[in-house]
Amino acid sequence: MNWSQLLNQVYADAIPTLGRGEVATYIPALAEVPANRFGIALVTVEGDLAAVGHAHEPFSIQSISKVFSLAMALRDGGDALWQRCGREPSGNSFNSLVQLEREHGIPRNPFINAGALVVADLLAKRRINARADLLKFMRNRVGNERLYYDERVAASEAATGARNRALAWFIKSFGNIEGKVDEVLDLYFHQCALAMSCVELARAACFLANEGIDPFTQERVLNPLQTRRINALMLTCGTYDAAGEVAFQVGLPAKSGVGGGILAIVPRKLAIVAWSPRLDPQGNSVASLAAMRSFVERSGLTVF
Amino acid sequence: MNWSQLLNQVYADAIPTLGRGEVATYIPALAEVPANRFGIALVTVEGDLAAVGHAHEPFSIQSISKVFSLAMALRDGGDALWQRCGREPSGNSFNSLVQLEREHGIPRNPFINAGALVVADLLAKRRINARADLLKFMRNRVGNERLYYDERVAASEAATGARNRALAWFIKSFGNIEGKVDEVLDLYFHQCALAMSCVELARAACFLANEGIDPFTQERVLNPLQTRRINALMLTCGTYDAAGEVAFQVGLPAKSGVGGGILAIVPRKLAIVAWSPRLDPQGNSVASLAAMRSFVERSGLTVF
Amino acid sequence: MNWSQLLNQVYADAIPTLGRGEVATYIPALAEVPANRFGIALVTVEGDLAAVGHAHEPFSIQSISKVFSLAMALRDGGDALWQRCGREPSGNSFNSLVQLEREHGIPRNPFINAGALVVADLLAKRRINARADLLKFMRNRVGNERLYYDERVAASEAATGARNRALAWFIKSFGNIEGKVDEVLDLYFHQCALAMSCVELARAACFLANEGIDPFTQERVLNPLQTRRINALMLTCGTYDAAGEVAFQVGLPAKSGVGGGILAIVPRKLAIVAWSPRLDPQGNSVASLAAMRSFVERSGLTVF
Amino acid sequence: MNWSQLLNQVYADAIPTLGRGEVATYIPALAEVPANRFGIALVTVEGDLAAVGHAHEPFSIQSISKVFSLAMALRDGGDALWQRCGREPSGNSFNSLVQLEREHGIPRNPFINAGALVVADLLAKRRINARADLLKFMRNRVGNERLYYDERVAASEAATGARNRALAWFIKSFGNIEGKVDEVLDLYFHQCALAMSCVELARAACFLANEGIDPFTQERVLNPLQTRRINALMLTCGTYDAAGEVAFQVGLPAKSGVGGGILAIVPRKLAIVAWSPRLDPQGNSVASLAAMRSFVERSGLTVF
Repeated sequence: MNWSQLLNQVYADAIPTLGRGEVATYIPALAEVPANRFGIALVTVEGDLAAVGHAHEPFSIQSISKVFSLAMALRDGGDALWQRCGREPSGNSFNSLVQLEREHGIPRNPFINAGALVVADLLAKRRINARADLLKFMRNRVGNERLYYDERVAASEAATGARNRALAWFIKSFGNIEGKVDEVLDLYFHQCALAMSCVELARAACFLANEGIDPFTQERVLNPLQTRRINALMLTCGTYDAAGEVAFQVGLPAKSGVGGGILAIVPRKLAIVAWSPRLDPQGNSVASLAAMRSFVERSGLTVF
Repeated sequence: MNWSQLLNQVYADAIPTLGRGEVATYIPALAEVPANRFGIALVTVEGDLAAVGHAHEPFSIQSISKVFSLAMALRDGGDALWQRCGREPSGNSFNSLVQLEREHGIPRNPFINAGALVVADLLAKRRINARADLLKFMRNRVGNERLYYDERVAASEAATGARNRALAWFIKSFGNIEGKVDEVLDLYFHQCALAMSCVELARAACFLANEGIDPFTQERVLNPLQTRRINALMLTCGTYDAAGEVAFQVGLPAKSGVGGGILAIVPRKLAIVAWSPRLDPQGNSVASLAAMRSFVERSGLTVF
Repeated sequence: MNWSQLLNQVYADAIPTLGRGEVATYIPALAEVPANRFGIALVTVEGDLAAVGHAHEPFSIQSISKVFSLAMALRDGGDALWQRCGREPSGNSFNSLVQLEREHGIPRNPFINAGALVVADLLAKRRINARADLLKFMRNRVGNERLYYDERVAASEAATGARNRALAWFIKSFGNIEGKVDEVLDLYFHQCALAMSCVELARAACFLANEGIDPFTQERVLNPLQTRRINALMLTCGTYDAAGEVAFQVGLPAKSGVGGGILAIVPRKLAIVAWSPRLDPQGNSVASLAAMRSFVERSGLTVF
Repeated sequence: MNWSQLLNQVYADAIPTLGRGEVATYIPALAEVPANRFGIALVTVEGDLAAVGHAHEPFSIQSISKVFSLAMALRDGGDALWQRCGREPSGNSFNSLVQLEREHGIPRNPFINAGALVVADLLAKRRINARADLLKFMRNRVGNERLYYDERVAASEAATGARNRALAWFIKSFGNIEGKVDEVLDLYFHQCALAMSCVELARAACFLANEGIDPFTQERVLNPLQTRRINALMLTCGTYDAAGEVAFQVGLPAKSGVGGGILAIVPRKLAIVAWSPRLDPQGNSVASLAAMRSFVERSGLTVF
């Protein structure tokens, strides 16, 4: 397949949706990003790269970081995580606290905020400096030593993160955060503030399309079973309240962030990332989602 | 691949789990099935068949029928259904009524009972005799004119179906059942009471592995997009509260029933059905699920 | 106190609120009542009577009937009811089904619909003709042999009662309705359809202000403890989601109905009833509630 | 009435219940109180005092403090509080977070923890040193300059208060806490740690039985309407999930604390306080509640 040509068509298909949706404003630093940015990048397990639009411009990866912190936690501690976090779709956001209350502080899956906080606690417990280690892990994935946490965004998250503080204290009240709440939140706010471009993100996630081996470094990040399972979690839980809808319309494991990015995996083939800041009511980028739909339609690459 | 040899190995792998779990007793007629029954059958899109154990013995397909009623409803009315039923995982069974209340009578997806009742209403509305038509549709899939509704099971469902009556009246109170509640329930109780063997069920579902075309009759049941979407729904919502877990451990679109059957699809390859009556606490057959895990492990056939 | 003069003042105070709110339309028969009707009546334990406005015009007492069916059930079976029904405020209407699910079919209190259905089941179980017996009980309270069920309203309730049918079947699914659902619903729909005037209703309820003895017949309806407890339930649970608000603003045991009636009790003194069809968003009559507030302000008769 | 004789009888009635229930252990400092302590005190609006048992021994008043912080907040700001806090019973504790989520951070009433945090925020906002002012207010009520916050209990609350921190941050996320979360929590943890005896507490609360005027200092603490309304709130919301039950069995405005104290008001007559550390599953003192039931039975003093 001619990937560049394909991405150009996908880009053209999605362009008409660019004006729709609203940029996330709950973090002031996110609200400043120009709303009309739009990029797509794709990296295959053979190392092919294609990119279009603002695919080289760094953006705040936000919740997409949950895929990588989960990968680190599984590599660190294997299946121990699943004693403290479930693997089921969460139904809807309304239920996040209800569900935590009913299930005694065990988050439904690692991709809702509650679950990501438990993952962060697990990372923080095993490491002297989890923040530095996560950054190093990401730099290795991308082959870019200048990858950074956007401290303005991290500070903005911390300043406006009352809901996440509530979640963390609530989980703590059930004993499912073992470390200090403030340290866990600090790690979480930083991972959300990672600044990466579409190209970097697609490259970083490529091990998920390659049975756990980073195709650029040949490093085994995860074993094949762990890899498959992260993909399964992305498909069932990766796009907030719209996971069913995305599975229905796109049919690929995917993880989105309120910065406007969406990462999708075609198992055994490639990783693709689209980015545009305007979001639909479910918190997924309108243009990025349109790009994913067009990509699947044109390429026929879906898991179903 | 030598399918027969593979199924024999899968069968042997799952045999040790046969004593675990409990046969469903909420319908008296189900409780009478011998608990140690166990069969597996597989039908490929090329028409190959493999079977092992009690794969030719009919059992009550129960909720697996929801896949077929959904297929009929989509063929009948296309996307109109999605105005009246969502496509998101339901979180957990606890929420079924809560969710209906919050979302004004729109069931979360067509595979929870509430959604299947809306599908049944849609079928009943368009047809003079929906019960007969569904039976005919299934007979065509299987090529067996003697396929039947087990009237004892249907009567048992009707006699003990207070919860389903509550659901139906509740949806009716929001105006999302248009027909008569008693007629919708009658259709629903009958579809659950379809008696089919593993072999018949695998053959009947084979169009889902073949982009919508029944490989035996060459009849187009659904278009490719509709087919893919049913598969996506099975993966995200097909196994009650364990959909995430099954995606995680099996990684195939699957639909289970409290009769002990599980149907799984390997897109573009085959349909596989396992059956054994003992259920885990989530309502999925212990041995059938073990068989699915073994099948995926041994064959490598997973969508992830 | 000059009760007539007092009621005239109360009536004048409340008149300006007459245009506010909306007549209940969910039952067609209720929607036909002229919206500007307004009456107040008061009956003291000494037998004094005062009335103003449309106080002699019968209206549909709806949920106010729950006070009387509860009284009959307690007289019939004493505290056995409390094994099957709680005594706590329900929080809010949203929770009715959630709560039933969490508490396995035990309604939170006898004044929500679910609780009234359990009371009706209890009445129906002990009697050959509960409908006739309840009517007789009410006729005795009022001293009027012509008191009747408005069959048009009862039929209207039955025709539009999908939500109540859902509730009844749901409770049945937990085994907390012992009789036939249709018979329980028939009794419930009829008790709601009792047609009574303010004067009749105040007289009928006077035993609640008189430690359980009907001051007109000297019949002991309930013992003093049972009487007090019904008053306590009215105060904590008698006015739908506004029970706290009514306790706060009025400070009397009270029970309202969507027909626009409100009954309040001044223990050891009197029963007062106001009626006007326009309802606030909580389902309580705007003018009747204004009358109650004015009555308490002018008379100082509050329990607090 | 001979109050001393009455209290002696009430004490004797409740003694057999002393061994039942469990001392609260969630705060270590509470767990150290000897479990067999039991005292009762009563103060009338005429200034009569009666006391029995350990009625002069200070205990941690815990949630009973919510009555006094509410009184101060109403005196400070009048009805403005009700923009930020409801007046309805909360249904059950399970719902506290659900309810906050559904109602956008507006607590259901000022006696659940969420509501008390909003009250604390309101107090803190208007004052330079709310902690000192609340202590002074209580000292004035009691006429005892040595009344104190038990700093060990306050520290214990702070160290184990993850759930309250979660609540406060959650309310903050909706904008319904205006001040700093840590300062609001500090005030709240201290008010719960007030150490008072039954006699002191009964005297302090006597204005609630006297239309808002402290009968000892003749100071008007609240106007009659505000006073009545606090009583109404105590009756509908004062005893956690058992408010309906206490209204049903006792029939007086009451407020309990997990330290084992219960305060009840007989409007226009007296305040009564019982204390014993063992709690029932709803968090109310078993012996104190038995004392209240006996008091009402023997005296006939109930509002119903």
